[in-house]
Amino acid sequence: MSKFVSLRNIRFMIKEVFDSKALTDYDYYCKHNEKMFDMVIDAALKLANKLMYPVLEEMDKNQPVLEDGQVKVHKAVKKIMKEFGQGGWIASGFSEANGGDQIPFIIRGTTSFIFAASNYSACAFPELTSGAAELITSFGSQKLIDTYVPKMLDGEWQGTMALTEPQAGSSLSDITTTAFPDQNGSFKIKGVKTFISAGDHDGAKNIIHLMLARIDNAPAGAKGISLFVVPKKRIDEKGNLIFNDITVATIYHKLGYRGTPAAEISMGEKDDCFGWLVGKENKGLSQMFQMMNGARILVGLASCAIASAAYLAALEYTENRPQGRPVTLKDPLIKQIPIIEHADVKRMLLFQKSIVEGSFSLILQCCMYADLKKVSHGDEKEKYGLLLDLLTPIAKAFPSEYGISSISSAIQCFGGYGYCEDFSVGQYFRDIRIHAIHEGTTGIQGMDLLGRKLVMNNGKAALLFIEEVRLTIRDAIQIFELELFAKELQRAMKQLEKVAGFLFNVAREKGIDVYLSDASLFLEYYGLIVISWQWLIQGIAAQKALSENCSKKDRNFYKGKFFTMNYFFRYELPKTYGLATRLMDNDNLTVNMKTQYFKD
Amino acid sequence: MSKFVSLRNIRFMIKEVFDSKALTDYDYYCKHNEKMFDMVIDAALKLANKLMYPVLEEMDKNQPVLEDGQVKVHKAVKKIMKEFGQGGWIASGFSEANGGDQIPFIIRGTTSFIFAASNYSACAFPELTSGAAELITSFGSQKLIDTYVPKMLDGEWQGTMALTEPQAGSSLSDITTTAFPDQNGSFKIKGVKTFISAGDHDGAKNIIHLMLARIDNAPAGAKGISLFVVPKKRIDEKGNLIFNDITVATIYHKLGYRGTPAAEISMGEKDDCFGWLVGKENKGLSQMFQMMNGARILVGLASCAIASAAYLAALEYTENRPQGRPVTLKDPLIKQIPIIEHADVKRMLLFQKSIVEGSFSLILQCCMYADLKKVSHGDEKEKYGLLLDLLTPIAKAFPSEYGISSISSAIQCFGGYGYCEDFSVGQYFRDIRIHAIHEGTTGIQGMDLLGRKLVMNNGKAALLFIEEVRLTIRDAIQIFELELFAKELQRAMKQLEKVAGFLFNVAREKGIDVYLSDASLFLEYYGLIVISWQWLIQGIAAQKALSENCSKKDRNFYKGKFFTMNYFFRYELPKTYGLATRLMDNDNLTVNMKTQYFKD
Repeated sequence: MSKFVSLRNIRFMIKEVFDSKALTDYDYYCKHNEKMFDMVIDAALKLANKLMYPVLEEMDKNQPVLEDGQVKVHKAVKKIMKEFGQGGWIASGFSEANGGDQIPFIIRGTTSFIFAASNYSACAFPELTSGAAELITSFGSQKLIDTYVPKMLDGEWQGTMALTEPQAGSSLSDITTTAFPDQNGSFKIKGVKTFISAGDHDGAKNIIHLMLARIDNAPAGAKGISLFVVPKKRIDEKGNLIFNDITVATIYHKLGYRGTPAAEISMGEKDDCFGWLVGKENKGLSQMFQMMNGARILVGLASCAIASAAYLAALEYTENRPQGRPVTLKDPLIKQIPIIEHADVKRMLLFQKSIVEGSFSLILQCCMYADLKKVSHGDEKEKYGLLLDLLTPIAKAFPSEYGISSISSAIQCFGGYGYCEDFSVGQYFRDIRIHAIHEGTTGIQGMDLLGRKLVMNNGKAALLFIEEVRLTIRDAIQIFELELFAKELQRAMKQLEKVAGFLFNVAREKGIDVYLSDASLFLEYYGLIVISWQWLIQGIAAQKALSENCSKKDRNFYKGKFFTMNYFFRYELPKTYGLATRLMDNDNLTVNMKTQYFKD
Repeated sequence: MSKFVSLRNIRFMIKEVFDSKALTDYDYYCKHNEKMFDMVIDAALKLANKLMYPVLEEMDKNQPVLEDGQVKVHKAVKKIMKEFGQGGWIASGFSEANGGDQIPFIIRGTTSFIFAASNYSACAFPELTSGAAELITSFGSQKLIDTYVPKMLDGEWQGTMALTEPQAGSSLSDITTTAFPDQNGSFKIKGVKTFISAGDHDGAKNIIHLMLARIDNAPAGAKGISLFVVPKKRIDEKGNLIFNDITVATIYHKLGYRGTPAAEISMGEKDDCFGWLVGKENKGLSQMFQMMNGARILVGLASCAIASAAYLAALEYTENRPQGRPVTLKDPLIKQIPIIEHADVKRMLLFQKSIVEGSFSLILQCCMYADLKKVSHGDEKEKYGLLLDLLTPIAKAFPSEYGISSISSAIQCFGGYGYCEDFSVGQYFRDIRIHAIHEGTTGIQGMDLLGRKLVMNNGKAALLFIEEVRLTIRDAIQIFELELFAKELQRAMKQLEKVAGFLFNVAREKGIDVYLSDASLFLEYYGLIVISWQWLIQGIAAQKALSENCSKKDRNFYKGKFFTMNYFFRYELPKTYGLATRLMDNDNLTVNMKTQYFKD
């Protein structure tokens, strides 16, 4: 069986780089210990190997179909939902009071990484359910919680996020689905939602949509959006599940992520679709965004998970595929060497490893901030919250964009075989492409970082980030092997301040439209620096281990970490030179470009 | 019907940028005139619209199947082969003596661009046939030519390039297919070839493989490889086509490029497969490479053709999709604007346009050099030949790598809809991915450029290239609007000399393995400068037109050219800063990286 994650790397990350054990010192996590974390991770790996990975290709090849108004998915889905429910995986991050295990985010993130790497389409069903249940738990009435959450956490009912409409994707403020107040506090829902992942399927007994809609006569735009629970089947007076007037208009055939249906659903065609308000009227968007931020981290996590599976497949292949000879030994009578020995192949593998493990590190850093936010108070709580907010767009966009290139490199390692369906790398290339689109496109993430996160609270988050990096540099600079890299990061941080200063000046002098015009590039630029920081953190842990006694096997592992950090600093970070040059150009090119100039 | 190429841009390129008409002053092309070129291009567009584009999705969805030893393809293939044969498209580039029309490479390249943009899988059948027929014509005996070429040019018989074997892809010197001398100058062939595009199908009456094999007891390696014609069906004494002991072992299911079967074929399982030597014994590889160089240009051409179709689809979509409002006008009561008006969308479109039209320009530049080589003599002939050789790896690799990003950007313009199969951009994303692999991977192109082309004839080609760029800069620097860009290219060329000098020093001091270790990055680096040069050439033509009287429509077109040139210089060329930094790093990272460090 192929390997899709490196357990050794996971252990390195949650033990040596991030001290996840230390979380158990806090009251909220005090029932856990390191051994339990290990067991949870082992169990996740076992489940992924048993249930998820074996149907990776099957779920891709046998796409969901819409028959007689019912979406039918691969039969494994029902089993997966059931086992995820019974095994407590859907609820694992929930508080005990809400039926969960209070597993820290960093461990929950790690298990999600394992599941997504084994089969992204399969894991989307329970992950979406978990997110939707969390939203009800956070903002819903006790009655709503009691009605829906237990069955969702059990994996009997599917949860969804129903936001997008045909005319309102990135611009959510334009949604038109309407909720008309009815009796007993319920609402009648009318409208159409599209691209709803797991929006209908026969692997669950009910589908619970967490839906954004506009209460009749609510204010225009974002200020008039509310959140509703709208089930596919509602419960009648006798406690039976009955049709709630939601019909599936169509399901999409997609480039990848094919095991999970994306449905267009229509509510209230017979004026018989009921929904129930979650939280306060007209506060739907901000409530949804609480879940959305977690969802964005999950998207980044899934991206590096899929890229992990592709990288490890490429690694295995290049170790075993003989082709060519060393550049300096061209004698055709000499045996061919495994292609991993060619410098260009090593470069491609280092690129993939640096993206996969660098991104994973950032995701776990975000999880760690989420955990520390959870357990701390006052200024500390604010600090970790701000750092998490700042890094979320990068954690979402960097892995989803660089992950495409990483998997493209994996295909390249396979040569012609990479283009064939005999190996899964082609599927990974298709699967990952969704992540730069859903839960906010890369362009939206760029605007979020530059237009909102960088300037919120008078730039407090950005300053806190600078301080975090300063502490890492302070530690690294004292280690002989890392001094060079610490200084390089220092240089990059100075340049970042210069670039940000330049842009703030642009905002003042030329306006917000020019300021935001290259936001996507700023996001990439910031991302390269953030991932370099994460590699330096990993470098510190690796050098620490190397300076102590370690086995030959471990030594190789830590040396690999050192070389990959090295690679990122010397091949990827230099991209910031070009990006900084561009970002400090003041030609306003894309603002000035007229649409008619595209005409021929 | 969707547009897949811009006819306006084609006209600009072959009339205003490259003076294709001037070729008719040479004897070899004297029977043509500009009007005929226009007619040829119009006819190609008509054919593409009638025959090719309508089956683009169908051919992707209904992949070839292997039934009872016979590969079956979409029924359009037979019709396409027939119309391409009868219409003279397969032979158009051949000399009149060989049954062709002596169409210049630049016009032939343009029609290939149109065909590939409309449906790459479909056009591969006649294109491969054309290349194979050319090889027989160039090196085969008159008898071989008479036996095979007319039926291939007529589109009755399919031609292939049969190089790759399961154990020999990039390392062709390791092929083991063997040719045993038989009677009457024929050979008995034994072996297996894999990934043979159009290697078997029912759209042609015979398949003519141009196959590399090793004559029994030939020297090891590249020096012992010969070229053979090995037909699927051979002609017996009575003139009948009989089974030639070639069987199809399997066909591959691929990520894209699905309309064209990639077959694994087995020769001589019953010891009854005959082949005929083409050209001289043991000269097969260099003979094949004559065709391969043309094939590599075609791969680059097909890449920018597919990216062209994706770009134009994205352009149309962004003009018509309303979403969001200007950054400075967030009032939800204002109507949504077409997304093309958002700066980030314009940036993505400019990126695509700059890659598509910049790459197409380079391809036509190569075609022009091929034409001038054809018609000139002595030093001139050598000069154009060297320039063509030097630029071929870039013309192959740059569009195939940047084309992936370009189409990824097209998907991004479509948002969620780009991930669905309702639009073709997902297919384009899959289709283009083959081009960085077949006919020599990007890694192979990098080695070719840095290890061979840059240093051949004591670096003469590189010096000739510098002179070509100098002449462009000399012209551009006198035009007010272009001065800045001319100087920027001058700066980049100086930096290129510095980088090359550094690398030559590395070769001397550290050896060829370190010198070549970042060859792929050098290729990208060189490519960015070459495409900038092509954009400056286009900028000169556009500014010339703008300085004269032109219609409002034309003015928009030329302004678009100017802005796109501008974009390439200000967003893409700056990437050379990071690449130069990397290339002049002397850490030998990928050479020093040990394979065991990848272990976990």
